[in-house]
Amino acid sequence: MDSKVVAELCAAIGPERVSTAPEDLVAYSYDGTWAETRPDVVVHPQTTAHVVAALRIADAARVPVVPRGSATGLAGGAVPVEGSICLNLARMNRILEISVPDTVAVVQPGVISQDLQRAAEKFGFFYPPDPASVYQCTIGGNVATNAGGPRCLKYGVTGDYVLGLEVVLAGGHVLRLGGRTIKDVAGYDLKRLFIGSEGTLGVVTEVTVRLIPKPAAQLTALAAFPRLADACEAVGNILQAGIVPLVTELMDQGTTRAIEDFKYLGLPTDVEALLLVAVDGDADLVQREIAVVADVLKRSGARDLRHARTAEESEALWEARRNVSPAIARLARNKLGEDIAVPRSRIPEMVARLGEIGRTNDLRIIVYGHIGDGNLHPTILCDRRDAAMMQRVAKAAEEVCDRRDAAMMQRVAKAAEEVLEAAVSLGGTLTGEHGIGIFKREHVPLGIDGQVLAWMAGVKALFDPNGIMNPGKKLPG
Amino acid sequence: MDSKVVAELCAAIGPERVSTAPEDLVAYSYDGTWAETRPDVVVHPQTTAHVVAALRIADAARVPVVPRGSATGLAGGAVPVEGSICLNLARMNRILEISVPDTVAVVQPGVISQDLQRAAEKFGFFYPPDPASVYQCTIGGNVATNAGGPRCLKYGVTGDYVLGLEVVLAGGHVLRLGGRTIKDVAGYDLKRLFIGSEGTLGVVTEVTVRLIPKPAAQLTALAAFPRLADACEAVGNILQAGIVPLVTELMDQGTTRAIEDFKYLGLPTDVEALLLVAVDGDADLVQREIAVVADVLKRSGARDLRHARTAEESEALWEARRNVSPAIARLARNKLGEDIAVPRSRIPEMVARLGEIGRTNDLRIIVYGHIGDGNLHPTILCDRRDAAMMQRVAKAAEEVCDRRDAAMMQRVAKAAEEVLEAAVSLGGTLTGEHGIGIFKREHVPLGIDGQVLAWMAGVKALFDPNGIMNPGKKLPG
Repeated sequence: MDSKVVAELCAAIGPERVSTAPEDLVAYSYDGTWAETRPDVVVHPQTTAHVVAALRIADAARVPVVPRGSATGLAGGAVPVEGSICLNLARMNRILEISVPDTVAVVQPGVISQDLQRAAEKFGFFYPPDPASVYQCTIGGNVATNAGGPRCLKYGVTGDYVLGLEVVLAGGHVLRLGGRTIKDVAGYDLKRLFIGSEGTLGVVTEVTVRLIPKPAAQLTALAAFPRLADACEAVGNILQAGIVPLVTELMDQGTTRAIEDFKYLGLPTDVEALLLVAVDGDADLVQREIAVVADVLKRSGARDLRHARTAEESEALWEARRNVSPAIARLARNKLGEDIAVPRSRIPEMVARLGEIGRTNDLRIIVYGHIGDGNLHPTILCDRRDAAMMQRVAKAAEEVCDRRDAAMMQRVAKAAEEVLEAAVSLGGTLTGEHGIGIFKREHVPLGIDGQVLAWMAGVKALFDPNGIMNPGKKLPG
Repeated sequence: MDSKVVAELCAAIGPERVSTAPEDLVAYSYDGTWAETRPDVVVHPQTTAHVVAALRIADAARVPVVPRGSATGLAGGAVPVEGSICLNLARMNRILEISVPDTVAVVQPGVISQDLQRAAEKFGFFYPPDPASVYQCTIGGNVATNAGGPRCLKYGVTGDYVLGLEVVLAGGHVLRLGGRTIKDVAGYDLKRLFIGSEGTLGVVTEVTVRLIPKPAAQLTALAAFPRLADACEAVGNILQAGIVPLVTELMDQGTTRAIEDFKYLGLPTDVEALLLVAVDGDADLVQREIAVVADVLKRSGARDLRHARTAEESEALWEARRNVSPAIARLARNKLGEDIAVPRSRIPEMVARLGEIGRTNDLRIIVYGHIGDGNLHPTILCDRRDAAMMQRVAKAAEEVCDRRDAAMMQRVAKAAEEVLEAAVSLGGTLTGEHGIGIFKREHVPLGIDGQVLAWMAGVKALFDPNGIMNPGKKLPG
């Protein structure tokens, strides 16, 4: 990158908000995946004006800009590209307003999602989106990926809560889209174009979200299903009983065994699936509903049903689900966490296909996910960690990373592609909530028709004519 | 229009689906407003292929196409333009699928909204969008205007239920957008661009909507508020009590008096506002919730509270709200039904401004609306109907229409503009649910920044480069 660009950034935004120190370039070179590319400079804007200045300079110089929040993403969307400006929005982290009469919150993009949840709760309100990284991820990142999580069957995704956005386009133009009303049909819904666009159309600098009253209570049931297909059917049966569950988390046998290996919880490991169901709402109603849920689960083929009668008991049941990530992390040095969504009726078939794909590629694939909304996270393990490894920690830093095992990684890539093909063939999508980023970029044509892609490329060219916004992401090259 | 175009349409789609009969041109010349323009030809497609053929022919000949469903719109969006093809989608009215395991419905655009609601109910499901014209309007029209209604605070608008769309663009390109999963972040959300675009970007030929379990019960309370501001505050207080009401319908004193003049219901006409609140959900819970609602209403300043303990009693309370339209229709030969939305906290101020606007323009403005979502329908009456008029029915057909009273119509236009200015100045929008159509087209710059409009025009040019799709609507000229 031309050093003039860095000098211009320093002059416009202040040198204390611009860094080219090697340690910063390293620190801002990765996200939640194994991808890693150092930016040429990191910029830390604190105001919309800073973002405008940065994008104006970048656009004039045709320098790529990669926005990021906490970079917890799982598709490589916030990983810098060669010769880029990393635009770190983490310092724009103020909650600007929580309006009780309008039941909305106005926040800067760097606000940590859980901080918004907690702030809303202080006013008796609820901000439902709850991605797994809620403790670290930012609202801006949630908007950029249209983040989901386990509560989406009942409460929808991030985009369903966004009433208004302020975005800055490549040339530094500031657009204020939407507002603070639920209903607004003036003009086209440009706001929704930016939601889920993974920073490829512009930078979100302010978000207005709607809040809802906080449900009074939540209760949970955990059921073991000898047959995974029955667990899927149970979710439909719960809906048929008139109940929209808060969460319906599926854990397959591989997941359950991993959890038990990690931490003894006494989970049944001889069944195909565990299903965690929670309901929320009025305190009396959830007591009745969880009893109905338990009954439906039993009728649907569940064994070993545990159903919580108190919040504490619910917490205990949640422990299994909470240990999924650390338990899986122990199984292998690397993993590729997939994120497909299929119509709910096709989940059993999808899981069967995952089994085949694992077998034919000689790879272990573990499956868990939010089956109420059809969103599965098949996780392809790239290596088994052996017991002796723990003693080789010192040596580990020097060790070649497993992803350099070229033959295995080829099998992983092939399996990942087959997973996506299977999802699409079942009427599903390439990504439910993680995004396309760089990891699925080449696979996009599997799921999106070429003509539709051409119009998406037209939208990209319209808002970012010089192609500086997070290039090489989201759309195929 | 070149007669060759009509001949081509007949050849491609079948002469029985193409009409230039004067009675058809008249029948398809208007919508729910007083606007009226005859098309040159009416086309009645029955398949997506018919729509493709029509749009290909129209685009090649640069002939405008105006899609319509039941034309119940209140902004002139479905009124043909000079020399246009009226594309009547009413015959594409099949419910293609209701999937119980996926809890979705797939429908053609001409399906009447209530028919979808009823079909869903047969399976124990609920399709919440409920625009006032639900008995006549079509799903395609609902998608085109992102239709709302009274239930949006709790259940959201039409767009919140659309999972997938098939749209045909001007050149006859068919795009399938979205799918049948709640979560899908592959590509840009083009689907949302078409939702609410009022037929200016393309024609919707298939819609996949998500369904939810049908709530078991619904109960209603009706309260009289000496002060309208207290009624608004009551809605916030209900939310603060942890209850999201199904509906919160405000009727101002003018509305209430009109209802009582139309039909004796014994409503209090000496108060500033009536507020109808309904809750829905579990049968026991709604009993408890309506009692809480009643309590909150009382504490918020309500008088004459009636609260239903049964579905029948609820129905009786609904009668007031149901009579709003016929009651207002009796007051004047013409009316301009406005449709602004403001943040809920600004409603009292908005209503005060409406009073001023009416006084300064010497016009009667009646106000009712869905205050939970900030959506008000100020209705500007253009003439009072006198008693003697009923005897002059025979003469009426020949009478000059009141809208030809040029001086009054100028005042109406001025008042309407002032209403929109007031809404925008209070942080609101030009239209909550009716759309821009032709009636608000020139006012769009009041509510949308010029730069944002330029990008909207760019989107229009991208999807409809020859500008044949419903020209002269939605965006300013």
